[in-house]
Amino acid sequence: MRIILASASPRRRELLHQIGWDFEICVSQVEERITKILPAEVVEELSGQKAKAVFEHLQGYASKVGCNGTGTDSDGVQVCVHEPEEGNDAVLVIGADTVVACDGEILGKPADREDALRMLRKLQGRSHYVYTGVTLCCRLADGQVLTKSFHEETKVTFYPMEEEEIQDYVDTKDPMDKAGAYGIQGICARYISGIRGDYNNVVGLPVGRLYQEVRNLTKEYQQ
Amino acid sequence: MRIILASASPRRRELLHQIGWDFEICVSQVEERITKILPAEVVEELSGQKAKAVFEHLQGYASKVGCNGTGTDSDGVQVCVHEPEEGNDAVLVIGADTVVACDGEILGKPADREDALRMLRKLQGRSHYVYTGVTLCCRLADGQVLTKSFHEETKVTFYPMEEEEIQDYVDTKDPMDKAGAYGIQGICARYISGIRGDYNNVVGLPVGRLYQEVRNLTKEYQQ
Repeated sequence: MRIILASASPRRRELLHQIGWDFEICVSQVEERITKILPAEVVEELSGQKAKAVFEHLQGYASKVGCNGTGTDSDGVQVCVHEPEEGNDAVLVIGADTVVACDGEILGKPADREDALRMLRKLQGRSHYVYTGVTLCCRLADGQVLTKSFHEETKVTFYPMEEEEIQDYVDTKDPMDKAGAYGIQGICARYISGIRGDYNNVVGLPVGRLYQEVRNLTKEYQQ
Repeated sequence: MRIILASASPRRRELLHQIGWDFEICVSQVEERITKILPAEVVEELSGQKAKAVFEHLQGYASKVGCNGTGTDSDGVQVCVHEPEEGNDAVLVIGADTVVACDGEILGKPADREDALRMLRKLQGRSHYVYTGVTLCCRLADGQVLTKSFHEETKVTFYPMEEEEIQDYVDTKDPMDKAGAYGIQGICARYISGIRGDYNNVVGLPVGRLYQEVRNLTKEYQQ
């Protein structure tokens, strides 16, 4: 089965490599539409929009004769597929979205330096939750289409941080492209006392759960 | 303060780099003597033996005129210090030891392929505990010597693994140099459903707690 990651995140790419999967990358510039309130539902919804946009465009892309390799199609979907669709290959598209939730507030990527400082001042010295939603869009060899969304929740606890430490960390620029303004896999590990749940879920993709879901899906498909 | 890591583990090295510390490496070939029974006490004891061996040899090493760089001293201690001791520099030696505990059995590195298979069959589909003990041996600029040991405990839960998955994982050779016959930071992430505690403690060094301990020590020293 061909696996397509519908995400430009280098961290998600590394995590899929880590679990030994061969995959291609296809990123959609789809506009996010949030209709849910609970963070667990928001990330499932957004992961679904990303996966479905790529899945649908990939289907259209498949029909274009002579269209392969890397490029941007007419709908602004960046396509980086190694080989053109054969038409009846089984294909799996993986979409994902991660947010941080603290005191009922959903923290995405910080808008600017001040926003990053605000988020870190809020998170330090206590616990918060990280949600990653994943949507699998799968077309089987017989043409049947399956879609499944799930999410994982991880509780993360920070040690107290001094104002100087927060400023120094924001100065590294590491927080700027990350939900909640921190990366658990970088220098910020200094300030994490522990987690409860899947670590890779905080990095951006719950690869344990993902592997299990895809394994089960593949098993059903083979039967 | 000069920081010396008393461990040959590339994973511990990466973790210290991750939290942004400059350090040198000095590895002792000291024979491990276990007098404790509880895993938390065993890892503290072994981390202490590693740190103290390096600390003591480093003191003697300092007195050898013209002796710097990489080499092996007369007691078999592998020394890789970038610069010779100045005599009155503050220096911190970090020793660490990691074990896996399951059903009262302490699992170290597997002896061979069969041992790795046995450990993974035991760990799959359930939870176990990982202990890393850390010992800090610190000589302050005024000559005062401080020693502190601590440990962190992390609970790790595996998804069920099929016999074929266990065999395939052992075939990758990844388990052979790791306590409990798995590396949470590699392909084995497929089989981890979650943890409770510090993730880096499972990799081999609880860098969150370590950073906090050294920060507190440095603060006391500056006062």
